[in-house]
Amino acid sequence: MRQSQLFTKTRKDAPSDEASKNAQLLIRAGYISKEMAGVYSFLPLGLRTLNKIMSVIRSEMNAIGGTEVLLSSLQDPEIWKKTGRWDDKNVDVWFKGEIAGGGEAGFGWTHEEAITRIASRNVSSYRDLPFSAYQFQNKFRNELRAKSGIMRTREFIMKDMYSFSRDEKEHQEFYNSCAEAYNRIFKRVGIGGETYKTFASGGAFSKYSHEFQTISSAGEDIIYVAKDKKIAINKEVLNEEVLKDLQVSRDELTEEKAIEVGNIFSLGTRFSDALGLRYKDDKGEEGAVVMGCYGIGPARVMGTVAEVLSDDSGLVWPKEIAPFSVHIVSIGEEGSDAFKKALELYDELVGRGLEVLIDDRELRAGEKFADADLIGIPLRVVVSEKSLKGGGYEAKERVGGESRIIKDIHGILSLV
Amino acid sequence: MRQSQLFTKTRKDAPSDEASKNAQLLIRAGYISKEMAGVYSFLPLGLRTLNKIMSVIRSEMNAIGGTEVLLSSLQDPEIWKKTGRWDDKNVDVWFKGEIAGGGEAGFGWTHEEAITRIASRNVSSYRDLPFSAYQFQNKFRNELRAKSGIMRTREFIMKDMYSFSRDEKEHQEFYNSCAEAYNRIFKRVGIGGETYKTFASGGAFSKYSHEFQTISSAGEDIIYVAKDKKIAINKEVLNEEVLKDLQVSRDELTEEKAIEVGNIFSLGTRFSDALGLRYKDDKGEEGAVVMGCYGIGPARVMGTVAEVLSDDSGLVWPKEIAPFSVHIVSIGEEGSDAFKKALELYDELVGRGLEVLIDDRELRAGEKFADADLIGIPLRVVVSEKSLKGGGYEAKERVGGESRIIKDIHGILSLV
Repeated sequence: MRQSQLFTKTRKDAPSDEASKNAQLLIRAGYISKEMAGVYSFLPLGLRTLNKIMSVIRSEMNAIGGTEVLLSSLQDPEIWKKTGRWDDKNVDVWFKGEIAGGGEAGFGWTHEEAITRIASRNVSSYRDLPFSAYQFQNKFRNELRAKSGIMRTREFIMKDMYSFSRDEKEHQEFYNSCAEAYNRIFKRVGIGGETYKTFASGGAFSKYSHEFQTISSAGEDIIYVAKDKKIAINKEVLNEEVLKDLQVSRDELTEEKAIEVGNIFSLGTRFSDALGLRYKDDKGEEGAVVMGCYGIGPARVMGTVAEVLSDDSGLVWPKEIAPFSVHIVSIGEEGSDAFKKALELYDELVGRGLEVLIDDRELRAGEKFADADLIGIPLRVVVSEKSLKGGGYEAKERVGGESRIIKDIHGILSLV
Repeated sequence: MRQSQLFTKTRKDAPSDEASKNAQLLIRAGYISKEMAGVYSFLPLGLRTLNKIMSVIRSEMNAIGGTEVLLSSLQDPEIWKKTGRWDDKNVDVWFKGEIAGGGEAGFGWTHEEAITRIASRNVSSYRDLPFSAYQFQNKFRNELRAKSGIMRTREFIMKDMYSFSRDEKEHQEFYNSCAEAYNRIFKRVGIGGETYKTFASGGAFSKYSHEFQTISSAGEDIIYVAKDKKIAINKEVLNEEVLKDLQVSRDELTEEKAIEVGNIFSLGTRFSDALGLRYKDDKGEEGAVVMGCYGIGPARVMGTVAEVLSDDSGLVWPKEIAPFSVHIVSIGEEGSDAFKKALELYDELVGRGLEVLIDDRELRAGEKFADADLIGIPLRVVVSEKSLKGGGYEAKERVGGESRIIKDIHGILSLV
């Protein structure tokens, strides 16, 4: 894409009411735009990265057998009354509205009730189980405070997966395979090293649930980590029994602030009991379906990557989720040799299937370099009179790389 | 995909309160699930087709220079008050909610206000124009009645594009290129022959807008069509002046019921004036940006295809938007030669990059054929003892094709 055709601009300052680092950087770099407190729109660069994060998650959910669906936002009170979660006294994040034709609807903040009803319409026999369904869907949560940029918003896309199993053992197998998929996801998006599967409170149907917590000073949670053992415990469940269960001592633990980037939860038969989701086993006997739920918020992941990997110059994207793979910076007026060469290189790389942003704007070199650092594409390639005299293009990784001359396109391809 | 692993089922009957043909068929075939009146969820098959319709639209929007964004659902009352569209007296489809932290928000039913504010944050000079931005985003409309299945719902994904031009001439060029893109879209999804660019009322800033209307008995609109001239006029604007403008006489027109599958609209400077979206031209003089908006609802397109192309046996999908390209129907018990051959063929076709559904369920042949017709994948390939004795696989197009023996995979590839 030509940067001159990107309608968004970088800006020197973020809105004065924006306290979080992730939102400041993402607004300044032109990834997102603030609509209200806790509400952001995604601009072209931001949507590209968000989509790539979703692609990573999708591929891992498909790999463990998940099937994608898309449930409605508008929620039928009927099914929520059956689980006791319609009442505002029990759930304090609802947005609700009157339907013009009569009755009420809620704006979904999660989808256990809806997917359980759908399952009950399709499952009758043990042959219909197990299965898992997931979606990328907008959740609405009427949060009292929204203060962590795109990490805690009143509206956000969530990947929520729900699993349906015949018994506890079958459920546990899927639960574990999903935990492994989550580890792969966080590794692929670039925060695997800082992210811990963390023991958290389990609710009525299991002793523990698991959160995936990324260590960051921007985190809202406190966790205790035994780094050598790769064990982490949420502060809310840290007690002698847990320490004994996990065979760690308090000395091994360090306290860390962390961002919850995902969670997995055993639901037992809470929802299948309430909504009548039952099946007949191979002996004709009825049983309740055992469920689990598995969430990741792609925008929160994006915000976390911005918090954890960015530096003083701007954003830093890992290859797999960068909006583009290569950022060509053309230094030279339109019509100059360098400008022509830059466009040629752009066409060649695009022709090879690469995603390339080319800065073809009429700006000073210094401004272009600063913008390139702010935007954070992994590989910068400068095409200038100087680079051409030096024998080619000047390539530099966004982080840690030295600037050096690359002779031809093959040299660039070897770096992406 | 193996049909035994598709957790949804076909069903004999649609819900008794479901009057529309499109929803009846889509529910029976397992494409959608009804949540409430006017609210549907998309199941795996339905989401596949919905995604394909969106891919067609996306490719055509990109081809005319559109850039994809994703705006928030939650809307800031501030900007809507400036255009006079916040008040329920002026707009009767709002869902609104109180924000827990104080203040109000609306659930977006369209996005002119939001995109105009974003544009005003990024546009200052004539060099920043023209551009166009589009999104696929969930709209909420509190409709009094919801009666046409997935064609008129209280919540629906819409592709809405907005264009920003320096003057009327530049705007008109883009408007025309978008009209052509829409024609290509409706052709690609299979309803080009029945769909007419239709003159409709223009509002304050232009004499006409244009709707894209698909002739169907399920339509809620009345249009007048001169088929030979490829001209159509919405009933609401049919008068002597329009007939004169378009050089058609009443004799040439036939009255038709039609479904509005898209619309394009010149907005003039209504929104840029209200929200201060101005630019400096090359002489340093200020002007207001000229806007247009361009909508298509992918689910409405899906419903329209179901209304227009389906037959007594079920759904009929054109190749480009079918959930799968090939439906293998395996007739024979697990472990039989035919079953093994069916799976081999499945693996081979998938290996070639084809999207294949294989009916590997333990059901009678008649039930499988009925399900295949109901689901409506363009090519059915039966693998049975009989077909193998006949020398291969029995291929049949969903519509109009004769069943015949195809010897090998190359024969199948030539049909998809």
